[in-house]
Amino acid sequence: MTCVPTFQRAADLRHACRTGAFRRETAGQAPGALQANLMLLPREHAFDFLLFCQRNPKPCPLIEVVCDGGLEPRCAPGANLATDAPGYRVYRDGECVDERDDVASLWRSDMVSFLIGCSFSFDGALQAAGVALRHIELGRNVSMYRTNVACTPAGIFHGEMVVSMRPIKSRDVARAVELSARLPIAHGAPVHIGHPAALGVQDLGRPDYGDSVPVLDDEVPVFWACGVTPQWVAQCSRLPWCITHAPGRMFVTDLPG
Amino acid sequence: MTCVPTFQRAADLRHACRTGAFRRETAGQAPGALQANLMLLPREHAFDFLLFCQRNPKPCPLIEVVCDGGLEPRCAPGANLATDAPGYRVYRDGECVDERDDVASLWRSDMVSFLIGCSFSFDGALQAAGVALRHIELGRNVSMYRTNVACTPAGIFHGEMVVSMRPIKSRDVARAVELSARLPIAHGAPVHIGHPAALGVQDLGRPDYGDSVPVLDDEVPVFWACGVTPQWVAQCSRLPWCITHAPGRMFVTDLPG
Repeated sequence: MTCVPTFQRAADLRHACRTGAFRRETAGQAPGALQANLMLLPREHAFDFLLFCQRNPKPCPLIEVVCDGGLEPRCAPGANLATDAPGYRVYRDGECVDERDDVASLWRSDMVSFLIGCSFSFDGALQAAGVALRHIELGRNVSMYRTNVACTPAGIFHGEMVVSMRPIKSRDVARAVELSARLPIAHGAPVHIGHPAALGVQDLGRPDYGDSVPVLDDEVPVFWACGVTPQWVAQCSRLPWCITHAPGRMFVTDLPG
Repeated sequence: MTCVPTFQRAADLRHACRTGAFRRETAGQAPGALQANLMLLPREHAFDFLLFCQRNPKPCPLIEVVCDGGLEPRCAPGANLATDAPGYRVYRDGECVDERDDVASLWRSDMVSFLIGCSFSFDGALQAAGVALRHIELGRNVSMYRTNVACTPAGIFHGEMVVSMRPIKSRDVARAVELSARLPIAHGAPVHIGHPAALGVQDLGRPDYGDSVPVLDDEVPVFWACGVTPQWVAQCSRLPWCITHAPGRMFVTDLPG
């Protein structure tokens, strides 16, 4: 994760994940390509989770759903969902029990794969408009926090929203809102600006996921709904079994971001 | 269905449906309230249909899904989904086998109710902008046609898109596109403008649903994706059993349209 992406093309990045050559966060990679959070679970819980996404489109904007154990989404021809993200997590009864480079050996014929939009996709739009993004400048993963904002439950799924935070220069906050609002598939406009405590976030310096990124004096903390929400919701709901990507290590699609 | 609505408030219209006092098309009623197509089916087919909606957001923009036999949607407090539309249809193995005033006696504990946006909701926006809508002026139901445009299938559900057609003065076509595009929950921008044959529609004078509305010399036929699509898809898919609203006789919500 640097200012200069290692891979320009999404297909090349996916191939590097498959061969083990790329095992890092994907922020800034394959500029212009839509990045996706992954939630992979058995058909038994697929209706409830699809409904959860429908009811919570800010944290869970759906790009695509692949049924019946399919491995190749339409948004990434030639890809393999079981091998082409840089890292995976396996959850059992809501707890993360394993981190893996690929999940091919765990694949099921009734797997339903949910590809959910990612805020990394608007980072490029913000940078192109001259909005500084310090996590990218610092070479760090974005900061992510659990909040006290309850998602709308659906079946067995319930829990609070996870947010990503970017420190934005106060002069650029309105522009950051306008630009991200145009990209609902990448979580759209921020869910909160300015007061972490209003979200139940007590210490910005200690994110629940990702890296710490200090907020400078002339900056405002801006919070977007985050695609890690399903992982926290799986924990809250004690979901019997699922696979996700590792936070920050996304599946990169061929769709324009 | 006249230029002067019988009911200003959605709750009053729903009550009149429940008591049997209102048994007509809902175009123009409860101005400013979001109207909904209904698709009511057993849990067994709910995942496939929810995925069908996710994959076909133009004909099937989801307003809300009510699970577990619930009768009162959040978008219409106090309402009863089994009695508060002006008419219902019962489909068995894809064929319409019954038209009913209410479906309370057919309700199931595993019913999943899908409320899908309706183009009637942007009629008001078009009229407010001075765009003439002749089906309302003529006191007729909108014209609806089956097309040759395949929806993206999902599980058992497959079939072609149904469209509604409004004759629009050629000088107003661009404005009609702009205004409806702002309302994705009401099917958004048109799917086609100008050439019915390109959609497989051979005779505008013989709609598959609703009433005929002649296209005048200075008008262009403009086609929007239509919430009757699920009824045609249920037929194509030979869905074992479902209930819908009667075409043109919508469930009216309390949401702003």
